[in-house]
Amino acid sequence: MTLSDEPLILSASCSNKPGIVAAVSKAIFDMGGDIADLQQFDDHGTGQFFSRVVFSGATAPIGAQKARDLLAPVLAPFDMTWSLRARNERRRVLIMVSRFDHCLADLLYRWHMGELNMEIAGIVSNYPRDIYPNLAFGDIPFHHLPISKETKAEQEAKLLDIVKSGNVDLVVLARYMQILSEEMTEHLAGRCINIHHSFLPGFKGAKPYHQAHERGVKLIGATAHYVTSDLDEGPIIEQDIERVSHRDTAEELVRKGRDIERRVLARAVRAHLEDRVLMNGMRTIVFPE
Amino acid sequence: MTLSDEPLILSASCSNKPGIVAAVSKAIFDMGGDIADLQQFDDHGTGQFFSRVVFSGATAPIGAQKARDLLAPVLAPFDMTWSLRARNERRRVLIMVSRFDHCLADLLYRWHMGELNMEIAGIVSNYPRDIYPNLAFGDIPFHHLPISKETKAEQEAKLLDIVKSGNVDLVVLARYMQILSEEMTEHLAGRCINIHHSFLPGFKGAKPYHQAHERGVKLIGATAHYVTSDLDEGPIIEQDIERVSHRDTAEELVRKGRDIERRVLARAVRAHLEDRVLMNGMRTIVFPE
Amino acid sequence: MTLSDEPLILSASCSNKPGIVAAVSKAIFDMGGDIADLQQFDDHGTGQFFSRVVFSGATAPIGAQKARDLLAPVLAPFDMTWSLRARNERRRVLIMVSRFDHCLADLLYRWHMGELNMEIAGIVSNYPRDIYPNLAFGDIPFHHLPISKETKAEQEAKLLDIVKSGNVDLVVLARYMQILSEEMTEHLAGRCINIHHSFLPGFKGAKPYHQAHERGVKLIGATAHYVTSDLDEGPIIEQDIERVSHRDTAEELVRKGRDIERRVLARAVRAHLEDRVLMNGMRTIVFPE
Amino acid sequence: MTLSDEPLILSASCSNKPGIVAAVSKAIFDMGGDIADLQQFDDHGTGQFFSRVVFSGATAPIGAQKARDLLAPVLAPFDMTWSLRARNERRRVLIMVSRFDHCLADLLYRWHMGELNMEIAGIVSNYPRDIYPNLAFGDIPFHHLPISKETKAEQEAKLLDIVKSGNVDLVVLARYMQILSEEMTEHLAGRCINIHHSFLPGFKGAKPYHQAHERGVKLIGATAHYVTSDLDEGPIIEQDIERVSHRDTAEELVRKGRDIERRVLARAVRAHLEDRVLMNGMRTIVFPE
Repeated sequence: MTLSDEPLILSASCSNKPGIVAAVSKAIFDMGGDIADLQQFDDHGTGQFFSRVVFSGATAPIGAQKARDLLAPVLAPFDMTWSLRARNERRRVLIMVSRFDHCLADLLYRWHMGELNMEIAGIVSNYPRDIYPNLAFGDIPFHHLPISKETKAEQEAKLLDIVKSGNVDLVVLARYMQILSEEMTEHLAGRCINIHHSFLPGFKGAKPYHQAHERGVKLIGATAHYVTSDLDEGPIIEQDIERVSHRDTAEELVRKGRDIERRVLARAVRAHLEDRVLMNGMRTIVFPE
Repeated sequence: MTLSDEPLILSASCSNKPGIVAAVSKAIFDMGGDIADLQQFDDHGTGQFFSRVVFSGATAPIGAQKARDLLAPVLAPFDMTWSLRARNERRRVLIMVSRFDHCLADLLYRWHMGELNMEIAGIVSNYPRDIYPNLAFGDIPFHHLPISKETKAEQEAKLLDIVKSGNVDLVVLARYMQILSEEMTEHLAGRCINIHHSFLPGFKGAKPYHQAHERGVKLIGATAHYVTSDLDEGPIIEQDIERVSHRDTAEELVRKGRDIERRVLARAVRAHLEDRVLMNGMRTIVFPE
Repeated sequence: MTLSDEPLILSASCSNKPGIVAAVSKAIFDMGGDIADLQQFDDHGTGQFFSRVVFSGATAPIGAQKARDLLAPVLAPFDMTWSLRARNERRRVLIMVSRFDHCLADLLYRWHMGELNMEIAGIVSNYPRDIYPNLAFGDIPFHHLPISKETKAEQEAKLLDIVKSGNVDLVVLARYMQILSEEMTEHLAGRCINIHHSFLPGFKGAKPYHQAHERGVKLIGATAHYVTSDLDEGPIIEQDIERVSHRDTAEELVRKGRDIERRVLARAVRAHLEDRVLMNGMRTIVFPE
Repeated sequence: MTLSDEPLILSASCSNKPGIVAAVSKAIFDMGGDIADLQQFDDHGTGQFFSRVVFSGATAPIGAQKARDLLAPVLAPFDMTWSLRARNERRRVLIMVSRFDHCLADLLYRWHMGELNMEIAGIVSNYPRDIYPNLAFGDIPFHHLPISKETKAEQEAKLLDIVKSGNVDLVVLARYMQILSEEMTEHLAGRCINIHHSFLPGFKGAKPYHQAHERGVKLIGATAHYVTSDLDEGPIIEQDIERVSHRDTAEELVRKGRDIERRVLARAVRAHLEDRVLMNGMRTIVFPE
């Protein structure tokens, strides 16, 4: 255990070559740091290097800005994509929801429990506040942004304004059920997580649980992924399933699906907030927690 | 526990109406039977009734033929599809295999252990016997039926002959990797089980594990289903999955997939052999073991 | 699908002998009923018969009281333990909680979603109301019943009064963390469900997750069971686990444990509310949903 | 991907202090190596550092001996426990078995499939060869070492001779069912893996599945662990479970248990053979595959 209670997290990826770990770990040692956790992955298919390093000052706190300044010249020769932040810098998260609020309720509860290291910048819904009578939002700003085919552009402009003025780092589509425009998905690339209420690939499109029931599957699942302009095809972060049987109607699959959706989304959001997810083309690296 | 050690299994389905269970259970009681296990399912979507009843003579064995004779007039008014057999009548099973023998090896081992209530009528492969040097076939007839585009009709004629002359009740495609003709699948309707080496629906077609790797999935699975002329679309009997990560190459998915395939196929075959699978259109009822 | 939307549920157990299913199903047919779901289990070890039958009037509703009256003389000769109720008769449930409210929050949410067929008779805590600032209790009566070694008898007297005056059918110990007296457990026999925050058998007693961490287990779990005077030894209703690793501290096991606890408890309560749990000595029959 | 097809695996643990990763990765870089996989874990409870590094020569193979020579002076100041070997150096494994051969059969099959990177030094059984009629042992030496209370010392002397003369690196108790003496377990410390045919902790001792059935559990499991003189208490490597129900007799639990046992043991052996298991007192670090 280090003296510091302020660990720093470095996420880095680049084209692989010998000496990266040596250079990074030397730089951390030289700045008085102690590595608490280093995870590394080389994708032999693409030749890419990925790493996540958690470190702290061994005898005194280093501070994120100083660490960035000291690491920058070391990482530059590797043409690295990297970020460094203090673990206790909470990301600002905007949660978007539609009529079904089980994922929202779960995220709120986990946030209250301290399981999710974030500030909630706001809640956006295309339904009014009073559709969620059992949820306590406290001080969290609630934005009712109704949407129709005609008002979509206008609604997204408001949404963008909320994202920008709220310094939003991450948008979570907690069963938002509306398709974002291509401009919006590009603006939010790598920082917008969706829960697809079915097992991907498989039942894309509308009413996936009813499709699954028609097909007589014995397992149903859910998939959390980053949103891209190609709907239902973004990089997968987390998936899970539950066993079902002939006794389950489509409605019961929907009920069981809610449990899967909420835990899959919560795990994906948690992984993102802990800087454990790195993008590898259309796939992800998710370092274990 | 009944005196008899020769339980009888009745499988029955029909259009639902009141009085079916009463009529069936009365008939069994009247013939001196004691019901050990009754499972029933009404599909409210289709209005179909399904049941599996295990019973024995309470004081003396009844015998399958006598039970059939006594049940026939009782079941006739319900326009029922039904079968009755003694549990110790072993079904005759033909196992078909191609180059990969992990499912075959597993079925053989479980058969030796007494987990699968069957006689193995034979093993058919499009590869010669010596491609399986580590498997002991004992007295099981081995048929090498090579296949090419030109010889397919001829090969299937031989296969059909083996099925008929061997009194084969069930054909198991244990990674056979060849597509049966429409005539063959129709001939074997409801008595030919395939293991699809991927999670259905999802990655159909060739190299599903490589497709799954490309897509960056976090779970892989396998599906056992009855074979129909619509490839990969037959009624699903059993499915299972395993968790994978970015660390798994396509080759490692293949390895993990082997474990899933063998257990999913074994469970499906076992369910079929125990008369626990009933057909419900393009879906199945699988009563729990 | 029957005309009636008011299914009746019969739960029954007795010493097994031939003719039980025939007698019961005939009686249901004679009263104009149609069986929608019949599940039956014979315990060959103990010779006991167990059954759960869901039925409705085929052409007109029967009504629970009339069904009871008509079944009573039929069931009497079998010396049967049985109950019959209408599925839409909601049971009255008292939820008891201590400092940790994740199970309570989950039960409340599922109740709001219509997943749990119950009325909440009240919430009892040994902590005051304001310890749960994020939970909306609405009209549910909240009882603060602090407890100490000296006041235990007095506190339980109050509790018993709440149970009696509130017509409580089921008490759920949602991480209540207090041991009920032997008198209380006897009074609540078969209608008090506890969630044991660890995998039973295994880590009984205090701080089970810390014990599990010390032992270096690779799986942690939770167990829902009926409360008996023998602490942690009552009939098990449901269990589940999650995979953990050397990376998980005891605190992280506690966090992961919360997810297991809440889903295990919710499933057990749901099974009880649907009359799917029958007692078999110190074990349970849990018919699948 | 490096030029070399001969990766080297370094396993290392020591008291944590700053600079370990920097020193190790610099030494690897200096010898012309490229790190393909680095996993590291700091146990904050005990202050211990653990790491597994896979590396290869970036432009030419390095060779295990040369790598050891170059690393030794670098690692010495950290008072490190470490080993380095080439991944293609197969460990020599002795498999011990008793009457039940499902784990043996599975290990043999996986070895044939190339899933287990080992040479099988021999098979030891207290039963004669012909009790395994369905298993093909090929060239693997089979040792029949019957054992009784009187002959135990003598039998273990023979066993020890086989271990020594066969250069055995790992002993796998694949349902051996005999308790090794304290001397033997000490001799084999850290290189003898047992499969406990039940979920630990919980049902220790004899007939664990029957105990589990008596208790009415809803899950059964198995545990693979290193053998210590304290029976059933050695460091856990891997565990898994399956869901069971009231329908399962003790015999059916035994059958289901076989599937769990064989996969848990295979995973544990595989992890050991890949140097992914490090000892942390009475617990293990198991780096993911």
